[in-house]
Amino acid sequence: MAVSINKNFLKLPGNYLFAEIARRVDEEQKQHPGREIIRLGIGDVTLPLAPAVVEALKQASEEMGRQETFKGYAPYEGYDFLREKIASEDYGPLGCEISADEIFVSDGAKGDCANVQELFAPDARIAICDPVYPVYLDSNVMAGRTGKYQESTGMFDQVIYMPCTRENGFVPELPKEQPDLIYLCFPNNPTGEAISLEALQRWVDYANQTGAVILYDAAYEAYISNSQIPHSIYQCQGAKTCAIEIKSFSKKAGFTGVRLGFMVIPKDLTRDGVAIKDLWLRRQGSKYNGVPYIIQRAGMAVYTDEGKRQIREQIAYYMANAAEIYQGLKAAGYEVYGGVDSPYVWMKTPGGITSWDFFDRLLKEAGVVGTPGSGFGPSGEGYFRLTAFGTKENTQKAIDKIKNM
Amino acid sequence: MAVSINKNFLKLPGNYLFAEIARRVDEEQKQHPGREIIRLGIGDVTLPLAPAVVEALKQASEEMGRQETFKGYAPYEGYDFLREKIASEDYGPLGCEISADEIFVSDGAKGDCANVQELFAPDARIAICDPVYPVYLDSNVMAGRTGKYQESTGMFDQVIYMPCTRENGFVPELPKEQPDLIYLCFPNNPTGEAISLEALQRWVDYANQTGAVILYDAAYEAYISNSQIPHSIYQCQGAKTCAIEIKSFSKKAGFTGVRLGFMVIPKDLTRDGVAIKDLWLRRQGSKYNGVPYIIQRAGMAVYTDEGKRQIREQIAYYMANAAEIYQGLKAAGYEVYGGVDSPYVWMKTPGGITSWDFFDRLLKEAGVVGTPGSGFGPSGEGYFRLTAFGTKENTQKAIDKIKNM
Repeated sequence: MAVSINKNFLKLPGNYLFAEIARRVDEEQKQHPGREIIRLGIGDVTLPLAPAVVEALKQASEEMGRQETFKGYAPYEGYDFLREKIASEDYGPLGCEISADEIFVSDGAKGDCANVQELFAPDARIAICDPVYPVYLDSNVMAGRTGKYQESTGMFDQVIYMPCTRENGFVPELPKEQPDLIYLCFPNNPTGEAISLEALQRWVDYANQTGAVILYDAAYEAYISNSQIPHSIYQCQGAKTCAIEIKSFSKKAGFTGVRLGFMVIPKDLTRDGVAIKDLWLRRQGSKYNGVPYIIQRAGMAVYTDEGKRQIREQIAYYMANAAEIYQGLKAAGYEVYGGVDSPYVWMKTPGGITSWDFFDRLLKEAGVVGTPGSGFGPSGEGYFRLTAFGTKENTQKAIDKIKNM
Repeated sequence: MAVSINKNFLKLPGNYLFAEIARRVDEEQKQHPGREIIRLGIGDVTLPLAPAVVEALKQASEEMGRQETFKGYAPYEGYDFLREKIASEDYGPLGCEISADEIFVSDGAKGDCANVQELFAPDARIAICDPVYPVYLDSNVMAGRTGKYQESTGMFDQVIYMPCTRENGFVPELPKEQPDLIYLCFPNNPTGEAISLEALQRWVDYANQTGAVILYDAAYEAYISNSQIPHSIYQCQGAKTCAIEIKSFSKKAGFTGVRLGFMVIPKDLTRDGVAIKDLWLRRQGSKYNGVPYIIQRAGMAVYTDEGKRQIREQIAYYMANAAEIYQGLKAAGYEVYGGVDSPYVWMKTPGGITSWDFFDRLLKEAGVVGTPGSGFGPSGEGYFRLTAFGTKENTQKAIDKIKNM
């Protein structure tokens, strides 16, 4: 008998979203060879790394070339210099008492979001926002936690889907069935909407009452502009006994191709009498070999005065694009959300047409590429995402074209 | 009901090996404060990065700082430039037809070794060499494949342990029970012994007959000096239908703190009618975000004429240490293995004493730190590992001290 594959992989819906987008764009380009097509569908940054970061990378590279300063294996949990900096700079000012030994440096939020489920029981019941970043669901499908996929609904049997639509202000209601693991992502990808401190506190209270653990993905935190919006779940009372927080340098400092993030697992978060942070350390010790020294040094540069200023300018640039998209679409009569505390603008498709029909219309009539909301979950149907990560010039041009549609 | 943890984690034997070594060394140092203690226990490189690699890191960092050359998310499977280089430089000269699209770049062999099991059935039966690098076992313990741990034997119920001792020349015999996944590591960590092409061919034939998949960890391949020893499992007939190979830049080019490796999954490797390489791509697409551009560029520098020369010098330096250790111990009357095709020297403890007793004796009488063989598996009892990654001066001093014990 030959070894069998992990059959859970076969339940994964094909990774067709971006492939299908590429196919339709190619076809359009073939039909109209000279035509300019502007891509506002991408979730990747486009500005180059800040000079302070480049300088730190070069300096650390030189350190690696000298006997006295060479570094071999990094600590699995990250260098203390970076963990301490994160604790003091990211959490201190928020009034959250998070210590360096509760911070676990990684190569980015995606891996952390995907791997954290390993610490919990194979039959744990998960709840996810709908629509949402697909990694939470897909990592649990592979782990066998999601039951069967129902073609008719686009949903898995054993997953608790929490719709986030204009009807509830894009913030999920407490679920009727009790979940074990609750994935929350705010500011949200794709809706671009944030959660208030009061609403988040309700989730923290619920988790503490039920014993569920919240996995809080705050990858877009640096884009929050409204002073009332929490930057961390630990701004809520009692979050340290029920929540893990995941943050990233990818969107904050343009590190999508550099790879740096971290997870916060408070010491007070225990289940079955075991500290979850100890499980994570054991996991990392057996499966991971640490973030490169030069990249952790690049992370440090983000916290220098120069680095902070340069990063602020990058975020301001993208957020000016977001405002341009938001205002432009609004002026053109569309119903628009997000774009204020995140780089994503989320719009209702006009006249109730499907996400993919609107995709085609936008592509053919305006030469603009966005992302169909239905690609992020069943409740994303009838919505559409545009991102602020393009250039200023292209963003303005795209909005002008949409206005003239 | 609160969420439960993954109880498989509780089956993991404590990660005590290196902690216990550190504790005993500390104690010795406290009792004899001025005494010099030389560490030959570590598996981490100590020479700085080759100048060609440092230069590549700095150049790529500058590229990341310019708009025209900035790179965001890397392809999950690695940049084509590196995959093509690996195919032509690492496999071409061996006569193995491995194409770029069968190569999957990663942040190192450890993660690949730990993650590859996810592609196979939850009840797949694993076979491991004993003694061996602990990651193969530990990643399967966490995944729930190993059954119960038996304190009395130091073994898990459901795991097929394949002893590698002086009696069988440190190459395992074909197992009596049929495994689904066979982890082989050659040149081996910790024994330092390699496998011949004929012996490896027997394993390939066995896997093809039974439908098992071989996971071949060749992380120490660059240290092979004997021209008869295979550098890749694909030098065996038929390996493409039964074997995945894992390689690393860590020991080859001193990248332990840089993080770069790759896995080869041939297109012809299928199970249940599915190409294993497609499963891996799907896994990486959902859980991983690619190796940083600058690090893939550093990998390219290893293949330049200058880089090759510098890397060869590093390996020669470590292998001179290995020879010093091997010859020195032999001259002192010890029974010694390894050290010819790998940076590890494996010795029999004298007079049948335990690995830990020999550790204590070496520490107290010679002031030298090594690694007890029993830390790598039950069949490692009565053996001891010394590594060639120290400085030339310290290695010579340590051997002189052992000789004078």
